[in-house]
Amino acid sequence: MKAARLYAYDKAMNVELKIETVPEPTINSPDEVIVRVGAAGLCRTDLHIIEGVWRDEMDADGALLPYVMGHENAGWVEAVGAGVKSVKPGDAVICHPLRSCGICLDCRRGEDMYCQNGIFPGLGTDGGFAEYLLTNERALIKLNENVLPVEVAPMADAGITAYRVAKRAAKILNPGSYCAVLGVGGLGHIALQCLHELCGARTIAIERSEAARKLARELGAHHVLDGGPDVVAELKDLTGGGAHAVIDFVGELGAEQLCWQMLRKGGTHFIVGYGGQIEVPTLHIILNEIAIAGSLVGNYMELVELMELNAEGRVKMHAQQYSLDNINTAITDFKNRQIVGRGVIVP
Amino acid sequence: MKAARLYAYDKAMNVELKIETVPEPTINSPDEVIVRVGAAGLCRTDLHIIEGVWRDEMDADGALLPYVMGHENAGWVEAVGAGVKSVKPGDAVICHPLRSCGICLDCRRGEDMYCQNGIFPGLGTDGGFAEYLLTNERALIKLNENVLPVEVAPMADAGITAYRVAKRAAKILNPGSYCAVLGVGGLGHIALQCLHELCGARTIAIERSEAARKLARELGAHHVLDGGPDVVAELKDLTGGGAHAVIDFVGELGAEQLCWQMLRKGGTHFIVGYGGQIEVPTLHIILNEIAIAGSLVGNYMELVELMELNAEGRVKMHAQQYSLDNINTAITDFKNRQIVGRGVIVP
Amino acid sequence: MKAARLYAYDKAMNVELKIETVPEPTINSPDEVIVRVGAAGLCRTDLHIIEGVWRDEMDADGALLPYVMGHENAGWVEAVGAGVKSVKPGDAVICHPLRSCGICLDCRRGEDMYCQNGIFPGLGTDGGFAEYLLTNERALIKLNENVLPVEVAPMADAGITAYRVAKRAAKILNPGSYCAVLGVGGLGHIALQCLHELCGARTIAIERSEAARKLARELGAHHVLDGGPDVVAELKDLTGGGAHAVIDFVGELGAEQLCWQMLRKGGTHFIVGYGGQIEVPTLHIILNEIAIAGSLVGNYMELVELMELNAEGRVKMHAQQYSLDNINTAITDFKNRQIVGRGVIVP
Amino acid sequence: MKAARLYAYDKAMNVELKIETVPEPTINSPDEVIVRVGAAGLCRTDLHIIEGVWRDEMDADGALLPYVMGHENAGWVEAVGAGVKSVKPGDAVICHPLRSCGICLDCRRGEDMYCQNGIFPGLGTDGGFAEYLLTNERALIKLNENVLPVEVAPMADAGITAYRVAKRAAKILNPGSYCAVLGVGGLGHIALQCLHELCGARTIAIERSEAARKLARELGAHHVLDGGPDVVAELKDLTGGGAHAVIDFVGELGAEQLCWQMLRKGGTHFIVGYGGQIEVPTLHIILNEIAIAGSLVGNYMELVELMELNAEGRVKMHAQQYSLDNINTAITDFKNRQIVGRGVIVP
Repeated sequence: MKAARLYAYDKAMNVELKIETVPEPTINSPDEVIVRVGAAGLCRTDLHIIEGVWRDEMDADGALLPYVMGHENAGWVEAVGAGVKSVKPGDAVICHPLRSCGICLDCRRGEDMYCQNGIFPGLGTDGGFAEYLLTNERALIKLNENVLPVEVAPMADAGITAYRVAKRAAKILNPGSYCAVLGVGGLGHIALQCLHELCGARTIAIERSEAARKLARELGAHHVLDGGPDVVAELKDLTGGGAHAVIDFVGELGAEQLCWQMLRKGGTHFIVGYGGQIEVPTLHIILNEIAIAGSLVGNYMELVELMELNAEGRVKMHAQQYSLDNINTAITDFKNRQIVGRGVIVP
Repeated sequence: MKAARLYAYDKAMNVELKIETVPEPTINSPDEVIVRVGAAGLCRTDLHIIEGVWRDEMDADGALLPYVMGHENAGWVEAVGAGVKSVKPGDAVICHPLRSCGICLDCRRGEDMYCQNGIFPGLGTDGGFAEYLLTNERALIKLNENVLPVEVAPMADAGITAYRVAKRAAKILNPGSYCAVLGVGGLGHIALQCLHELCGARTIAIERSEAARKLARELGAHHVLDGGPDVVAELKDLTGGGAHAVIDFVGELGAEQLCWQMLRKGGTHFIVGYGGQIEVPTLHIILNEIAIAGSLVGNYMELVELMELNAEGRVKMHAQQYSLDNINTAITDFKNRQIVGRGVIVP
Repeated sequence: MKAARLYAYDKAMNVELKIETVPEPTINSPDEVIVRVGAAGLCRTDLHIIEGVWRDEMDADGALLPYVMGHENAGWVEAVGAGVKSVKPGDAVICHPLRSCGICLDCRRGEDMYCQNGIFPGLGTDGGFAEYLLTNERALIKLNENVLPVEVAPMADAGITAYRVAKRAAKILNPGSYCAVLGVGGLGHIALQCLHELCGARTIAIERSEAARKLARELGAHHVLDGGPDVVAELKDLTGGGAHAVIDFVGELGAEQLCWQMLRKGGTHFIVGYGGQIEVPTLHIILNEIAIAGSLVGNYMELVELMELNAEGRVKMHAQQYSLDNINTAITDFKNRQIVGRGVIVP
Repeated sequence: MKAARLYAYDKAMNVELKIETVPEPTINSPDEVIVRVGAAGLCRTDLHIIEGVWRDEMDADGALLPYVMGHENAGWVEAVGAGVKSVKPGDAVICHPLRSCGICLDCRRGEDMYCQNGIFPGLGTDGGFAEYLLTNERALIKLNENVLPVEVAPMADAGITAYRVAKRAAKILNPGSYCAVLGVGGLGHIALQCLHELCGARTIAIERSEAARKLARELGAHHVLDGGPDVVAELKDLTGGGAHAVIDFVGELGAEQLCWQMLRKGGTHFIVGYGGQIEVPTLHIILNEIAIAGSLVGNYMELVELMELNAEGRVKMHAQQYSLDNINTAITDFKNRQIVGRGVIVP
């Protein structure tokens, strides 16, 4: 089959993925499933993998190279292992990014991303920038019949990360309260839609890009700010004292230090983006009784719920398609911030 | 001032309220407030008071007669007691139905309706079918400047009852789950709107009146059923096994017995309407692990939250106005089910 | 192997289980595990099976007979299927009663008992009144090294049913509030211990048997009532208006109708026992804003948590042992209410 | 009356409170209450006030001096305002530290400490190091008849701060999980007792003082560590990967940086002590999905609940008494860490 493989890590990102013919995956255990890839989202984590950011944790000696990246996958079931009962060849599916075991206590709690035996196709093992992908039954969700894989692939990672944090925020937000969303990119534009579906609070989108601010307005953000130097004061003025929740999809370049300053007493700063460092006096945390909370990729049930909202047309992914042959163009466009919404690779 | 007073209880409801001139209320304690009534909603409980349903609990010997009914009030602050700080004459306000004490443990928990020292204007003591109403500071919420009292008066009771139960249901409803709403009248049409704002679940409106079904569709109910003899089977089929929550605004005439049969495993039947009797085998309750839960009038914070949704145009009361002089016509229309949405009395 | 099998249903319970030699179970799928039974609890549901109460739902034509009963099992792993990784031969384990699939949405939510593909050894398929038991990997929890199977077998069903409802009640109980427990038998004596560990509320044990009341006092119940004809009035007096939660382990013979009358405003009546019928006016439910909620057998994580409390000596099962050869004596003793705590069969 | 007043702020703490005769407080509004002080706890915040730590926020120009400190008060009602109904002269009471208004939205939510019109006797206005104290009805909780003011005064602030954070932690702690408590002083020893009452988790007390470690063991801490240089590794080893919650009563001197490192995935670091600064990479927060959350003084209902636990003998304050004449000795002992548990001033 045709696949795009990574052959070297390079901080300067001068490497290209090599489009080549590789053997198709085969089923080796009764719970495995081969998916014919319909589309695979291109994620900032893919750039970080190429740069070698994850090398130390994932592949210190480079022994895993070359491999197929791509961890936001959707397609059609091609073949199933002997024990698989819930899907059959031909079913359209989206793939939760992690192949979880279903046995460890974290799986039993429903927190698939914490799985102690998880395998993450696309991160150190073959993923979805190819014609076929190997995963397992527990990763699969059947698509509603009116939904095409290419429309939803990035929901598998970008989507559920945004959904999970929006759902957590919604739990503490009542009508009349405010939720600020920093960054209206691939995740932020999903989070805005989810917040509007999951609670009656008011949203404040904060974005430097005019195009993204326009998207935020179209998606119904109640307020849109341009993130200028006075953004904390502006937000405090607008909200009468601060937001009840701030969701930070940036997490670096100083944004992470502004977010907790935007909170009102009792508020929560949810962190999704990363790279920077939180530095805050304990006295400030206590006097304002704020919380600073990280939020990961969503679990399987969160992807199920998000796909329900998507099937009903309530939460949609804005994306731009590239053929697998053009994946290196997609990567370049992404680096140069020329993709609107999410880039999606179609084999 | 002009007021409509009740002089007798009558099961046949042949009595009329007497429109007459009575002394204006006066402030007797530092927390009291006189409100110039802008509008007062007409509630089914008013019919029940006239019928004498509440007589035994409220006024066994009729000693409270005559008095002014009307417990869904909004207007403008006319005068304030010496200790009142949060409102001033001229402020437009809506009145939480209960004058709560703020001292008892139930008030401290935020459950104003449980207040051990509460006074309920309109139920056994003078209410809002008059030019002026006496209440206290703790009952008042200032209206947003774009909101008129006449637009919101029934929110004070019908509205928050629907909001409270919708908020409780929303807590257990995720995207993809189903919430059935039985009865799309004064409360049900508010509950539908609240559910759509507070969670991502699908709503199923069940109503026998075609006009009300039409309203349900306009308000965005995802499914509308006519409540025929096969309603339980229809709903189970539609939902693939039963609803996750059912809100029963009828509570009598057999509806109360259908509702818990509509639930899927783990579901909750919320009861708001009353009159009938629940009869269910314990074995059924356990095997299906269902809950049957009553829901009361909302508390002060719930009215605050509902007024936020209303001020943003997200939840609106459908109402029909009558002058105070025509209150007996309003009552007759209500009895004859000729009012669309809620009847509102304007002095 | 030696096993006790049921050959006929009989409402009069004149049948005996037949102690005989049957083939040992064999592993037929990669997730299966054979457990050498250390002990198996005797449950009231076993009596109901013999009486034919479950016949219509489980085995209408008797085609499943004969089979080995016993669904509260603990022992040692004897053999494992090819895919099993979390346990190995020799491990001491307790068995969650259901062999769940780990794939259906109910499993993914963590509600093993709702599993759409669950198999229940001991109910219509061979269980643990034998030397060996066939189950699957997802059902097993390794015992702490200081714990013996015979000490905990009934935790697998009686224990987690009590734990689940106690945990649910604990969530709504604050220090100063009251929880009534009706019935201090096999489940009730565990629920009392769990409540004392999980929350700061006061417990009120209600029991007609003096021996069980004595046990309740030893376990630290804050109040013990004998369940006489004035029990509702006694409880209301003791609690200053009613309990915040009532856990009903009886569910029949009129107890089910007393329990909701014991609640204070906003309280919850949890039902675990069954047989009777709830009959309550909707007006009562609403005015008091009470809830009536069924509670099932606990899920896997609840058994994990209960075993932690047990391993620390905080929750213990009171039991009486019988050899497998004497199982019919155990059944007779159970029928005649001569077992203190739980009866346990040791092969 | 006799009172101890502060006349100057001094970073070196060389000032003494002046014991002198001052006018008794008088009632000026209908909700006010005069309490004859039974005892007043000495708090680290009192030292900070003397040092001038709070000067900028509370009394920048020193205009409030001289005044009576003491914000952990209990005693007997001496006189009540015209509107007071829930207490009468002679009642033994404990005083929530804040005189809250009961009208603002924060009060309505039950978060008394957020009250927008709160008055804090002992911080910038006369407190309880005197024979009489002026407060209001909303601050008072009647003591159970078997409880003396001197036994509970520090519960009013130290106690509810510990209770609030323990209750928040208990909500996320199941049997088998671990909660570390850093610092077993006036607050920490209460938190340990509360955790043992409110949940089934295991506690790990971390303390450098041998006397405090001894107290922790007596109070039933499941593990006790001495907080040496390897404390993070020790704790991770003990817990098999980290604690589910860490409560930090130190918040300075580096402890604040160790606490979040002690967490397992999904854990929460609760901060109560202050002085230091949190510095943590966003990547660490996200990958481990941890939360860092401040916790304030408890609200009124939390004090009610704590007093219930205290009245039942389940949570007790360890304290050392000083007469009002010896208050400066108490302050010196406190500075020199010579007080076991809490210091209490008896007028």
